[in-house]
Amino acid sequence: MTTEHRTANAPAPHASGSRQAHDFFAVLAGRTATRRFTGEPIDDATLDRLVTAMLAAPSASNKQAWAFVAVRDPARVRRIRAFAPGVIGVPPLLLVACFDGSRAPDDQRMPEVGVLCVAMAVQNLLLAAHALGLGGCPVSSFLAEPVRRLTGLPEHITPVLVVPIGHPDREPQRSVRRDDSEVVRYERW
Amino acid sequence: MTTEHRTANAPAPHASGSRQAHDFFAVLAGRTATRRFTGEPIDDATLDRLVTAMLAAPSASNKQAWAFVAVRDPARVRRIRAFAPGVIGVPPLLLVACFDGSRAPDDQRMPEVGVLCVAMAVQNLLLAAHALGLGGCPVSSFLAEPVRRLTGLPEHITPVLVVPIGHPDREPQRSVRRDDSEVVRYERW
Repeated sequence: MTTEHRTANAPAPHASGSRQAHDFFAVLAGRTATRRFTGEPIDDATLDRLVTAMLAAPSASNKQAWAFVAVRDPARVRRIRAFAPGVIGVPPLLLVACFDGSRAPDDQRMPEVGVLCVAMAVQNLLLAAHALGLGGCPVSSFLAEPVRRLTGLPEHITPVLVVPIGHPDREPQRSVRRDDSEVVRYERW
Repeated sequence: MTTEHRTANAPAPHASGSRQAHDFFAVLAGRTATRRFTGEPIDDATLDRLVTAMLAAPSASNKQAWAFVAVRDPARVRRIRAFAPGVIGVPPLLLVACFDGSRAPDDQRMPEVGVLCVAMAVQNLLLAAHALGLGGCPVSSFLAEPVRRLTGLPEHITPVLVVPIGHPDREPQRSVRRDDSEVVRYERW
């Protein structure tokens, strides 16, 4: 990745352990879906920062009914990817984000609500990745059973999103969005 | 709210339009669920920043199958709150975050995936609120039909989360979290 592929707020990956400031609103505005990656690996310190950011998400009734498997082994990434057509490039990190059905078994609404918390954790992960000069995207198009088998998930843990993360191999393109007035109304619809 | 209730990264609300830096990782780590608010209103400029942050979330297949109603009228906030027991204090802003079923009617998986995008947008909103010295929390315990009626939502738009936002009336308490090793595994579960 050449320097012109980074914004002022996305430091080089080797700076990820530093105390360099990452402006919050620039990170939010700059994040885009990244689907193709260089071959550069993700080191332990960077993975730790991503995991810490991810787990800082809100959790309904603080049940933390979630479970995550971080896969970096290239052979396992490729095997999972074979069942996840939404994963286009070969990422150095594949984060399998799951709902843990054992955490509030008597709460009938928990499956519906728990997946929202998983999604919020994934958004923290994607934002943190962008802040560290990485990219990724949430992928929902995958076959749950093969992913479950390849990551050794027990019955009560269900994969919700698969998230490829890595160093972008090109300048990310911003997607065209609907006009704000189409999707936000004030006081009533 | 007295100054000691703010962190170094959470400026006073009146500074929300400034170019003051908000460190990304401090915002992520500092966000907590805020449920009780002072009576201070949220001005148009602050609401605009919150909405912009919210709409910068990822969207599956870029369908943006979402819709949001921002309610500040105190009478309407109170009426909605009567059907949302998870909203404890009286917030100056209630954001009703919805799935729009009209955006990808032929995609059978869209309802399941679209709500995850709504949740990610809400996480952006909550993080932006914290960055601006505000607080909030995602609330899933509400009666959908009265909320739909009170906000004038058409049939194809379904409320997913109700999000109170305001100025915290006390120092937020951090929730106790499970040990990372319980919820994150490496390579396989």
